[in-house]
Amino acid sequence: MEMIKNDDSLALHTDLYQINMGETYWNDGVHNRKAVFEVNFRKLPFGNGYAVFAGLERVIEFLENFKFSATDIEYLRSEGFNEEYLEFLSELRFTGTVRSMREGELVFANEPIMQIEAPLIEVQLIETPILNIINFQTLIATKASRIKQVVGNEIAMEFGTRRAQEMDAAIWGTRAAYIGGFDATSNVRAGKLFGIPISGTHAHSMVQAYRDEYTAFKKYAAIHKDCVFLVDTYDTLKSGVPNAIRVAKEENINLIGIRLDSGDLAYLSKEARKMLDKAGFTKTRIIASNDLDENTIINLKSQGAKIDSWGVGTKLITAYDQPALGAVYKLVSIEDENGKMIDTIKISGNPEKVSTPGMKRVYRIINNSNQKSEGDYIALEHEDPGDEKRLKMFHPVHTFISKFVTDFEAIELLHTIFKNGEKVYETPSLQEIRDFLTRNLEVLWDEYKRVTRPEEYPVDLSQACWDNKMQKIEEVRRKIDEKIAGVKKQ
Amino acid sequence: MEMIKNDDSLALHTDLYQINMGETYWNDGVHNRKAVFEVNFRKLPFGNGYAVFAGLERVIEFLENFKFSATDIEYLRSEGFNEEYLEFLSELRFTGTVRSMREGELVFANEPIMQIEAPLIEVQLIETPILNIINFQTLIATKASRIKQVVGNEIAMEFGTRRAQEMDAAIWGTRAAYIGGFDATSNVRAGKLFGIPISGTHAHSMVQAYRDEYTAFKKYAAIHKDCVFLVDTYDTLKSGVPNAIRVAKEENINLIGIRLDSGDLAYLSKEARKMLDKAGFTKTRIIASNDLDENTIINLKSQGAKIDSWGVGTKLITAYDQPALGAVYKLVSIEDENGKMIDTIKISGNPEKVSTPGMKRVYRIINNSNQKSEGDYIALEHEDPGDEKRLKMFHPVHTFISKFVTDFEAIELLHTIFKNGEKVYETPSLQEIRDFLTRNLEVLWDEYKRVTRPEEYPVDLSQACWDNKMQKIEEVRRKIDEKIAGVKKQ
Repeated sequence: MEMIKNDDSLALHTDLYQINMGETYWNDGVHNRKAVFEVNFRKLPFGNGYAVFAGLERVIEFLENFKFSATDIEYLRSEGFNEEYLEFLSELRFTGTVRSMREGELVFANEPIMQIEAPLIEVQLIETPILNIINFQTLIATKASRIKQVVGNEIAMEFGTRRAQEMDAAIWGTRAAYIGGFDATSNVRAGKLFGIPISGTHAHSMVQAYRDEYTAFKKYAAIHKDCVFLVDTYDTLKSGVPNAIRVAKEENINLIGIRLDSGDLAYLSKEARKMLDKAGFTKTRIIASNDLDENTIINLKSQGAKIDSWGVGTKLITAYDQPALGAVYKLVSIEDENGKMIDTIKISGNPEKVSTPGMKRVYRIINNSNQKSEGDYIALEHEDPGDEKRLKMFHPVHTFISKFVTDFEAIELLHTIFKNGEKVYETPSLQEIRDFLTRNLEVLWDEYKRVTRPEEYPVDLSQACWDNKMQKIEEVRRKIDEKIAGVKKQ
Repeated sequence: MEMIKNDDSLALHTDLYQINMGETYWNDGVHNRKAVFEVNFRKLPFGNGYAVFAGLERVIEFLENFKFSATDIEYLRSEGFNEEYLEFLSELRFTGTVRSMREGELVFANEPIMQIEAPLIEVQLIETPILNIINFQTLIATKASRIKQVVGNEIAMEFGTRRAQEMDAAIWGTRAAYIGGFDATSNVRAGKLFGIPISGTHAHSMVQAYRDEYTAFKKYAAIHKDCVFLVDTYDTLKSGVPNAIRVAKEENINLIGIRLDSGDLAYLSKEARKMLDKAGFTKTRIIASNDLDENTIINLKSQGAKIDSWGVGTKLITAYDQPALGAVYKLVSIEDENGKMIDTIKISGNPEKVSTPGMKRVYRIINNSNQKSEGDYIALEHEDPGDEKRLKMFHPVHTFISKFVTDFEAIELLHTIFKNGEKVYETPSLQEIRDFLTRNLEVLWDEYKRVTRPEEYPVDLSQACWDNKMQKIEEVRRKIDEKIAGVKKQ
């Protein structure tokens, strides 16, 4: 067991069917046919007007290190896989081309957010971990950005480790929250690994340990020059705030803040503000925590709460109101026996579940007159909307709803990350990613940024993309009809 | 950065305030005072009648390896911590005593599920990772057991990796699901690491890749003797099932099953069952997946669905309807300056949030006449309910509700895992944990196992435990009143 753990690799962090399909392709000699898969989700989470893409850095690391370890192969052998196939797998590395949205990019439903072009077997094996990473990190970055919209220029802090869904969720969730606009985290390891500012002072247990609030604050102040005191262990206004003020005066420390973690945060913060101001601590911040999310924060603000910093835990780190983003990974094109790429489609009774065939590009259409986005435009690989004088954009379901854009710039959103297995992308710093998101949000009209009932941002197909989809639907329908007729004849 | 990653340790996987409080204790010379913290949650998740404890193995591993690494210390130095404190931290190991429920134990609200007795600074530093682990794994084991109650003797499979909250959640969540009664997982790495049976065959993409269902099944059958075909890529009853039957006959394979992943699973399974039976495949199983949870499964069964195996993804692995368990970690006793243990309490306006002071034991009271549980009984350390001829059990909130039990056995539930830093517990195998849960469930009356509106299982306090709590509440109240009077006088 120890050996197995030490030789752990993420190549097996996949669904068994990927390895079974791989064996089928390998046995049939089609495993090296070029295939293109695209990642997209069908619905924005939390009823938000946009999502924030995150997870690319972890995907890059995964692909660079993709390799079955000795004990991986041994395990697969014990599961009865063909020996030659295992030999093949043990040599396998990622050799494909990846195009992706950049972290901090605004992304929307039904547009490709990542595209992988690689030998069929490779692109299949990596599906599960890629979705595992992107689904979670994009979800949390989006939730964080949504909360930050409400927090505004005040401080937002991630406090959720103890409620996160195991350790990776705490660590990568914190990074995603920072991308989404949070300012700090309580998780020290995330601070170390990613350089995220860390935040925290003391818990109720310290007051309990000294069995006296005043003593506990004194002891804390003896070694910390900058203090934030948690004031609600016994009674916020009668005991906590007076003790904080008393100790700050006696010890001549910098009373950065007080923290409220229970009770009516609106009332308590207003009263505490008055007490602090009266005692001359006008710059002391009031920090609030206790099951906060964007809705509670809106309410507290509308009640005039005097809160300067918001500590958000469970509701952010687990994306409590929608704990999964349903991004899927669909085959859109595959090489046939003659080396020609054939576009593929997946049909469904549910219109949103019908995939859009072909290798695509995504453009953000920026109106030159106001530098705001008119929507996203999905075109086939060979098209260049920048060439158009007058771009027709139409709703991909209600096709009769359309508009023409003239004076615009078409900005390509999918960037090449790997080219034939080589990483060709310079990974930005976390600060650059945060700044990138800020700039992206500036391009978006406010109507898409509202937390409740935002407008629907247009994600439109090019005419050629639409025609290609219709043609493929027709082809598949014809084929099924023939098949059914064939089965009936037997 | 590479260096930092290679030297990653979990000692920093904690909230900053733990390290700050640690510094205060260390500076004040009280860091080695013995303290007892207990873990409990206040409300059963999902409205279930019980929870299934999980996470202990990971906690043991964490505590055995607890040690700040060189780069951990370096990082803390860059954050401005005192050099002598850092020296102290770099030598720190876990030296405490841990008592815990065993994995697979049934646990309930407001009872200690883990108890840690250690030098104050140690027990404080490990709070966050312990809650991070136990909260998630107990949540998922409980959700899995709840789903398994509904699935009954049929097969339940964990299929959620792509929607899990990052990789640890997929891996440890799968282990928790297996503890809770699931039979298999699609995650190959979980199979390798924990020996959980793995399951899976092929996806829609294989049918798309061959652009023909019949061909795809043929190719798969060419190398796999035992086949499960996914039959809903085009049309389940008109194309999928007939192609599966045709290929099974032509290739003479063992058609273990067909899988339905969309559409009306009740109708399709009944029709598919008829077709399979008519063709002689009476032993071929019907496997269903597609956003299943306990409620959908109950409904499908009540509609007479002919489903033999259930693949459950998102709703299980994220605990979708309640993605966090709110277990907390409370100081219940601490050594004073004279070496005497003093029980501590945390008061709150909310009665459930008032902690129960003192180091406790938890007993399951088994009625000898029927081998069923009468409830759990929380007593102070020195009490032994086994000595009682006639045990009084009373409701911890509505104290006038009480009963007497006479012919009973009191089984102690907290087991010693570490004794002064040494592991003294033999970790059971996963199979033993599963069997343990099965036996535990047999002791529970059915009224607590219902998925909807189960009865409330009694978790009662001993008279001594109750009296101790009341006395502490009185003490704290008196102290606050004196404090307030003192502040007013100033």
